Amino acid sequence: MARIVMKFGGTSVADIDRIKNVARRVKREVEAGHQIAVVVSAMSGVTNRLVGWCNQMAALPDPREYDTVVATGEQVTVGLLAIGLQELGLDARSWCGWQVPIRSDGVHGKARIDSIDTTRMVAAMQAGQVAVVAGFQAVGPEERISTLGRGGSDTSAVALAAALGADRCDIYTDVDGVYTTDPRIVAKARKLDRITYEEMLELASVGAKVLQTRSVEMAMKHRVRVQVLSSFEDKPGTLVCDEDEIVEQELVSGIAYSRDETKVTLTRVPDRPGIAAAIFGPLAEAAVNVDMIVQNVSEDGRFTDLTFTIPHPDLERTRQVLEAARGDLGYERLVADADVVKVSVIGVGMRSHPGIAQKMFQTLASEGINIQVISTSEIKVSVLIAEKYTELALRALHTAYGLDAA
Amino acid sequence: MARIVMKFGGTSVADIDRIKNVARRVKREVEAGHQIAVVVSAMSGVTNRLVGWCNQMAALPDPREYDTVVATGEQVTVGLLAIGLQELGLDARSWCGWQVPIRSDGVHGKARIDSIDTTRMVAAMQAGQVAVVAGFQAVGPEERISTLGRGGSDTSAVALAAALGADRCDIYTDVDGVYTTDPRIVAKARKLDRITYEEMLELASVGAKVLQTRSVEMAMKHRVRVQVLSSFEDKPGTLVCDEDEIVEQELVSGIAYSRDETKVTLTRVPDRPGIAAAIFGPLAEAAVNVDMIVQNVSEDGRFTDLTFTIPHPDLERTRQVLEAARGDLGYERLVADADVVKVSVIGVGMRSHPGIAQKMFQTLASEGINIQVISTSEIKVSVLIAEKYTELALRALHTAYGLDAA
Repeated sequence: MARIVMKFGGTSVADIDRIKNVARRVKREVEAGHQIAVVVSAMSGVTNRLVGWCNQMAALPDPREYDTVVATGEQVTVGLLAIGLQELGLDARSWCGWQVPIRSDGVHGKARIDSIDTTRMVAAMQAGQVAVVAGFQAVGPEERISTLGRGGSDTSAVALAAALGADRCDIYTDVDGVYTTDPRIVAKARKLDRITYEEMLELASVGAKVLQTRSVEMAMKHRVRVQVLSSFEDKPGTLVCDEDEIVEQELVSGIAYSRDETKVTLTRVPDRPGIAAAIFGPLAEAAVNVDMIVQNVSEDGRFTDLTFTIPHPDLERTRQVLEAARGDLGYERLVADADVVKVSVIGVGMRSHPGIAQKMFQTLASEGINIQVISTSEIKVSVLIAEKYTELALRALHTAYGLDAA
Repeated sequence: MARIVMKFGGTSVADIDRIKNVARRVKREVEAGHQIAVVVSAMSGVTNRLVGWCNQMAALPDPREYDTVVATGEQVTVGLLAIGLQELGLDARSWCGWQVPIRSDGVHGKARIDSIDTTRMVAAMQAGQVAVVAGFQAVGPEERISTLGRGGSDTSAVALAAALGADRCDIYTDVDGVYTTDPRIVAKARKLDRITYEEMLELASVGAKVLQTRSVEMAMKHRVRVQVLSSFEDKPGTLVCDEDEIVEQELVSGIAYSRDETKVTLTRVPDRPGIAAAIFGPLAEAAVNVDMIVQNVSEDGRFTDLTFTIPHPDLERTRQVLEAARGDLGYERLVADADVVKVSVIGVGMRSHPGIAQKMFQTLASEGINIQVISTSEIKVSVLIAEKYTELALRALHTAYGLDAA
């Protein structure tokens, strides 16, 4: 007997038929003898309607009231799923955030979970009842409903799994697991059986949109084993777990990419101490999320070019901030290029095996792909290249690192 | 400065524009210097969708989960209205049943309010905040959401007004008050400025569907002054209040009618002691709501005809119950007639003025209308007549009692 948290997102509970399908899935786990808590999102479409109403009432609705309205989406799903489970002969009941209670810091729209008191829920689960828990919501210090922000239901599920000491947290999605790279681009992409938290974090943050970064961070912190699997097919997915659980660790686990970045170059920046701080300080204050940074070697010791990447939507703000600071900075021109892609090779194995980066550079060179920017971390090498090479680069690297399916 | 509870039903908050309209109404009362609590229903259409989903999940959904789902309708409206009030520059916040808390007996789908703890709400109202309260919902003994059943939001409003010691409870509806009779039938019907609880109760229960009976009973019990008025027009409505508040009491306040009844006659019932109990006992057990009863004088002392009225939908059940008991009862035939209408003359003045009933009988006789059944209470005379005479009878009686508008 295991204790398992199952999580189903909006597309998995999109309509009544799919909610019934989820009920059958849950029943199978109950019949296997497991104690089950199910975390669900709002039916897809419902949240959009609720958000639309709030925005029709005010351009900037009070986040507390916005949360009150939007949280009803999950409340509807938990009630309906509990009814569906009972219809299959199971004992089940719904739990809203305030009923558990799942307590948050009360920051509306992006609350963080402070604590989950599972006493009553555990008693009910031990008596054989399925706990159907509203994702995305919690109750703040003043007994008001707060929502957790984007990807909140994944976070709810992982936090609940941690609080319940669950053996596993199964995240059901519209993909059947985590792949070595995007299967829409690389036909030979392979589904991974297991992946470490660290690798999953890098994959999530560079654009493999399977799990929200925040929920992976929480899983890593609390050592919650997370399985990503399909809600529509009946097969095992990918287990996100501790390195110790992975017997044969690959050098490279996956190759991710992100087209969401814009490259910005400032030309003829005076090459003096403090210039980087003078540029990136104001950008940080303006909440611009700067990612890769390269500073060219200064030829004459007086001027240099400085290149960095930012998310597409931040470009206008970046221009404004740097234009305002132009007098202080004294650069010549700001050149923006959105036709770039960041490609990353990820693997915990590279900690102990040198040459991973070298193989990346060689592979891209042999395809005639110019590397514009490089950045590395302990388990990742990222390069910025022209966007038109995305497919070519992914396929070449996938083969070079021996990831192709047999 | 007064403390006022305002209540808006489903059609008054049917869409975003109407919710904004409600916000403007509330603002006017706030600007008049009053402390305001607003009780709202779900947007019309929303509840139907939620109920539909529950019924698609199961033929007989668990009432606890049904309540969890359906109560979200009011939660959405309170959030949206609070946003709308803030947009007009008012301080406002939403209160779900569990947040107030409004505590119920936990009978799901038709809960009764046990208590309302207004401590926090009063503090907020005294600080100038408008309290926007979800109608129709409460929280039961196990911290689960329970709904109050039909007309629940009226009951929520009156109960809250009682708990707050409010000066008045204004119920905004799609009619502009209580009329002497149905203005769709009698063009000369007049809007009443004031009406007693007792009269309103009789009007409500005989088919003037302005306020739910249950909320009037509660208002009478707690002496809550209730005003019925239009949410679309800006004029005073009808105040339902204590007799003492009505200086010039009319003999007759109104004439109501109900087409919802079926007349049932049992022919040749043995005229023996206990026969009425033998008939109406089983009907009561089967939850058939028997209204008027007449037993004809028995000619030969052995058999009699017995006539009574029931709501239309109860006819089949009535037939089954009486057929099953036929051996004991020994009646000859069961004759049902749905083409009847109950017309009632109502007025607290008739307590002290005899002749009210006599005038009714004379008026109907002079129009050639045959009276089939008569029943009376302290402040009401009801007759059952053929349905085709409904309009004729209402107009004649309205004139006869001097109720016609000038």
